[in-house]
Parts: sequence; C-alpha cells; structure tokens
Amino acid sequence: MGLKGGPTQDEVMAVSLRKLGIRAGDRIADIGCGTGKVSIAASLVAGRVYAVDRRAEAIAYARQAAAEAGAVNIDFFEGDAVEFLAGIDRLDCAFVGGSRRLPEVLDLLSEKVSGTIVVNAVMVETLAEAICSMKRLGIFREAVHLQVSRSAEIAGGVMFKPQNPVYIIVGGDAACS
Amino acid sequence: MGLKGGPTQDEVMAVSLRKLGIRAGDRIADIGCGTGKVSIAASLVAGRVYAVDRRAEAIAYARQAAAEAGAVNIDFFEGDAVEFLAGIDRLDCAFVGGSRRLPEVLDLLSEKVSGTIVVNAVMVETLAEAICSMKRLGIFREAVHLQVSRSAEIAGGVMFKPQNPVYIIVGGDAACS
Amino acid sequence: MGLKGGPTQDEVMAVSLRKLGIRAGDRIADIGCGTGKVSIAASLVAGRVYAVDRRAEAIAYARQAAAEAGAVNIDFFEGDAVEFLAGIDRLDCAFVGGSRRLPEVLDLLSEKVSGTIVVNAVMVETLAEAICSMKRLGIFREAVHLQVSRSAEIAGGVMFKPQNPVYIIVGGDAACS
Amino acid sequence: MGLKGGPTQDEVMAVSLRKLGIRAGDRIADIGCGTGKVSIAASLVAGRVYAVDRRAEAIAYARQAAAEAGAVNIDFFEGDAVEFLAGIDRLDCAFVGGSRRLPEVLDLLSEKVSGTIVVNAVMVETLAEAICSMKRLGIFREAVHLQVSRSAEIAGGVMFKPQNPVYIIVGGDAACS
Repeated sequence: MGLKGGPTQDEVMAVSLRKLGIRAGDRIADIGCGTGKVSIAASLVAGRVYAVDRRAEAIAYARQAAAEAGAVNIDFFEGDAVEFLAGIDRLDCAFVGGSRRLPEVLDLLSEKVSGTIVVNAVMVETLAEAICSMKRLGIFREAVHLQVSRSAEIAGGVMFKPQNPVYIIVGGDAACS
Repeated sequence: MGLKGGPTQDEVMAVSLRKLGIRAGDRIADIGCGTGKVSIAASLVAGRVYAVDRRAEAIAYARQAAAEAGAVNIDFFEGDAVEFLAGIDRLDCAFVGGSRRLPEVLDLLSEKVSGTIVVNAVMVETLAEAICSMKRLGIFREAVHLQVSRSAEIAGGVMFKPQNPVYIIVGGDAACS
Repeated sequence: MGLKGGPTQDEVMAVSLRKLGIRAGDRIADIGCGTGKVSIAASLVAGRVYAVDRRAEAIAYARQAAAEAGAVNIDFFEGDAVEFLAGIDRLDCAFVGGSRRLPEVLDLLSEKVSGTIVVNAVMVETLAEAICSMKRLGIFREAVHLQVSRSAEIAGGVMFKPQNPVYIIVGGDAACS
Repeated sequence: MGLKGGPTQDEVMAVSLRKLGIRAGDRIADIGCGTGKVSIAASLVAGRVYAVDRRAEAIAYARQAAAEAGAVNIDFFEGDAVEFLAGIDRLDCAFVGGSRRLPEVLDLLSEKVSGTIVVNAVMVETLAEAICSMKRLGIFREAVHLQVSRSAEIAGGVMFKPQNPVYIIVGGDAACS
C-alpha cells in the first residue's frame, strides 16, 4: 500500500506482540494503526481492539483488511489519538506504531492502561522521546533495538538483506491484563 | 540454568513461533528443547508438544519448568532426535533449537511435518547446513538474521547491549497445519 | 586496563580515522583520549596530536602507551576539554571519544577546527546531543551506527560475538585540513 | 557505476585496510578490484598495487579512476586471478574483494603473501569457503561481521538506514610486510 512507513515488519510485530503479552479478552488500543496489520494480529487473542489513525486512507485500508481477515472485534477511529484516548475508559494494553503527540499520548496511556504499552520507533528522536516520557511517568521497562536481515538469493549463494532497524520501547506497571 | 546455550532469547522465540504459525490443536516437535522454554510457549496453542533432548539434565529441567508453568500437553523424550523422529507418525510443525545430526533430522522432518519447520542457529556452519539441507529437500523458504540489542542504563543515559545474533531458518511445503 | 569504556574498538577507530581524513602535518585534538589508542594511531599521520582527558589515570596510561609506541608528537593535557579548547588556537581535525560537556565542546570545536570533527557515542543521549549540537552549529554531516561482530570458535564451528554498537557522528565545514 | 556489487562501502574499506596494515613500500594485490576504490586508497601507502579483475569494464573503470586520483603506482591486470597470481613473485598483502575461484586464489595467496590477506564477502557461502580455506592452510585469524547503518533525515528526525552487512575475513602468518 502507499501508506507512509508501510506495514510493520513481521518480525518486529512478533516481538512487539510478545512484549505486549495480550491475554484472551483484553481491550487493546493500536495507536497509528496504519495498514491494520497489528490490529488484525492482536484481534486473534484480544477481546476488543481499538484501531486509531488520523489518516482517512489508513482507516479505510485497515477496515478493508480487517474485513478480509474476518476480524470482527476491531473498532476503527479516524482522528487524533489524544482525542480518542480522552474518551476511552480503560485499556489492558496499547501498541503505538506511530503518533505525532507521543508525550501526550503516553501521558494518557499511562492513566488508562493497566498492562503493557509498546512503542515502535524508527527515528532516534522518537526513541529518546518515548524513553524520556516513560521515565517521567515511572513506567519505563526496556527498549530493544531489532535489526532484521532477510536471506536473498544471489548468483551462487545466499546473502542477508537488512531491513530498517526498529526500536521497541516497553513500559507499564504490570503484566498485561 | 547451566545448560549449554541457555534459554532461547525472548525475541528470537517470538519470531520463531510467528514463523511456525502454530494453530490450535497442532502436534509440534521441539528438537533440542533445552530449558523447555519454547515447548512451554508453544504448548499454549498447540495440541501436543514433543520435547526432545539427548541430555538428561535438559529433560529434567524442562519437565520441571513445564510442571511449574502448568503445561500438561508436553511429552518429553530423552534421547536422540533421529530415533525419536523415526518413531513418530506425523507432525504439524517442528522447531529445531539444536541438534547434532541436522541433515538427518531435516530429512526426517521433511517427511513427517506437514507444515513449517524452523531452525535456530548461532554457528555459520549450522546456518549453511540448514539452508543446504532444506534446498536439497526442496523445502527452503527463508533465513532471517536477528540481531537483538537491549537497553541498559549507564551513567547518565541509555545504551544498547547486543545479544548474540541468531539465524532463523524456515522451511516447509505449506502453512503450518 | 581499568579505564571506563576501555580502548576504542579497532574497527570503530578505523572508521573514525577514515571519516577524519587526517593529512600529513595536521593538528588534531583527541578529546577524552582514554588509553591513548586513537591519539597514537592518529600520530602516525598528523603533525601534532593534543590528547586531552580529565582523568589523571587516563593521561598516565596514554602517556606510557605513547612512549612505548615511539609516538613523540603527542601533547598531553590533563583537565577539562572546555578549558583546553579555550586556550588552543586552531585545529585541523578533532576526535571526541568522550566528554562531559559535549555541547560546549562542540561549540568550541566548531570555531577552532577547520576540517572534520568526529564524535563516538555509545549512549542514545550522546548521539542525540551530538546531532542536535552539530545541527545548531550548521556542521552536521552524517551519523553512522556501527555494529561489529567478531568470529569466535565454539564446538564444531564459528559464531559471531557482537561488540557494543557505536555511533560515529561526523561534522565540519570541509574536508580535513 | 554499473559494475556488479558497486564500490566497497567506505566503512568496510576502512576496516579492511586497517586489518591489512599496509606499510610504506608494500606490494599489494587487489583481487577483484571492481571500481578500483580499494586499490586507489591502498596506493597512498603501498609501494605498488596490482589491481586484478577479469571484467574489461572493471579494469577500464578502475584505470580511469586511478588516473583521475593521480595514483601512478597501480598496475592493472585484466584476467583471471589464478593466472595473475601464478605469474607473480611475492606480495606483502592481498585484498580479495571478489573472486570466482576463492579456494585456489587463497592457496596461491598463502604461498606468495608474507603479510595479511583480507577477504570481503557478502554471501554466506563465500564466508564459509574463505574460513574453511584459510583454516585448511593454517592462516585463519578472524572474521568480522560489519553492519553499517547511515543516518537519513526523515520528517522531523533522524533514522538509520542499514547497508548490506559484509564479512571481513582475515588471514596470514604475520603482520603485513
């Protein structure tokens, strides 16, 4: 698809979901849901997924992808994450794939989320901002730098093509749910 | 624990399980199960897990860990993987965390496994052997090089401490199960 | 040696020196010289190297190492980098292996250095600070993340042991000298 | 340029040259010289560089680049590396950026080279072949996996774009020259 950033790498999603530790029935927010890939994967275990993106084309794309995947427990919100979070009651986990007002988003998430918050970042500034905000809120647990390289066949052999490295920042008071 | 190699890194396990794509009810083998960490994680979804290790201390450790985790659908086999596989009927998926006779093991797995086979390797020779065997058997899909680095607090800031890189080699005819 | 941080990794030094592009006769400062390893390597090409460290034990160690290497064109300064730089006239290049007052150091270096400035950083905060300062000064060129892994023999094969990743931040108006 | 593989990454070249440890006056072979980038850099220190490539277009390109760089101490050989090496007397160092008959080339190099041999590889098979050949010849010293990522500006920040990882395999009996 043409959405900026494209879908989350499979391996990054697998690690992010493991860090989230979603349990059956959990309520989870996917902030900056983009293509909906993480929402759809999370919906297999979660009770309800809130997929939020301020881009109409992202919500349209994700909604379509969810329908094709048969995911019926995803609610879509086109709009600002801060506004969405102001109106939500409580969450078990949250995944932030992208957001423009990260410190505010993390402020709200730290109030609403009882379990784990996972942020994906490609920019150094986002990494620093996420760690800084989580430390200020007293919820920082760890950050992971994930460098995935995938095999590619070239003349006579196999080489590894690197994907863009991603930072996975993890926070929260307790295990998810 | 004192077992050689220690438990699979969390992130490597998350990616390996994602590649395996275990479905509810699947029969899965964990060859070279070591601490049992992957067996226990797989047992949450799988129908039955066969945990195989030729080291008595590994089986004892894994059996204890499974009991503590309340995993009741894991069968333990102390002995050679080739012998175990000769006696098994069919499998949906297989994870190979370590094995001494990898080409033979992969030969047998390619016959018995209807879904995905995932090998973890730290040595270049094992990587080459796994790719070579899977290509010979016509089941090679991809290899991934995973370099995980974890944040560590040092004076005044955060740095990233690299874990040993791991190769994840994936094969099989079709999606798991 | 017992100095915090230890000597710069060989590979990181090679890349840092290449980025510096020292020419015969250049005057170069090595800020936070530690063991003196970079100073000694630079002294093979440079005309004069100023090795600066606020730790008496670092200067003692580096001075001894330089003597053993037969490097006679290194001047040692035990003390604060900001004070050293305030008293220096002009430099062709500068390497910053470590410093407590990085923004101030970069301010002064941007005035005194006619060529390239290279900063090594292991902490994310130092990376961000170096980029931010260099951008403010209009001298930021590039940053490189270097992940070196070295082969190690284990039972039956070769694996790669990762070294701590290092950021190499490069600034300056023009080529060195 | 359109040559397969393109020029050696700057950082990989810096590390490779450091491992080679070329001394003033050394005779060095650059096997699979491609664009001539390594030959030209080596020629600044070496006494004589033999740049070998079996592709006419590589030799033409490298010859032109050397002329533009003012490098007058490079001899160019269009042809097979094995044939070139059979006809050469002795070398102080050798760099192998690419070659089709690596085991034979390493056999010959181990006879002719008194100092260090450095091989660059992107394929796992070449890595394995280089290590295996060097071990057989009793000259294997180390292999390094170098993952370089370069900063790139994107909306509002800096991210790191990974380059293709390169293996640097080092062999030889003694220090170069």
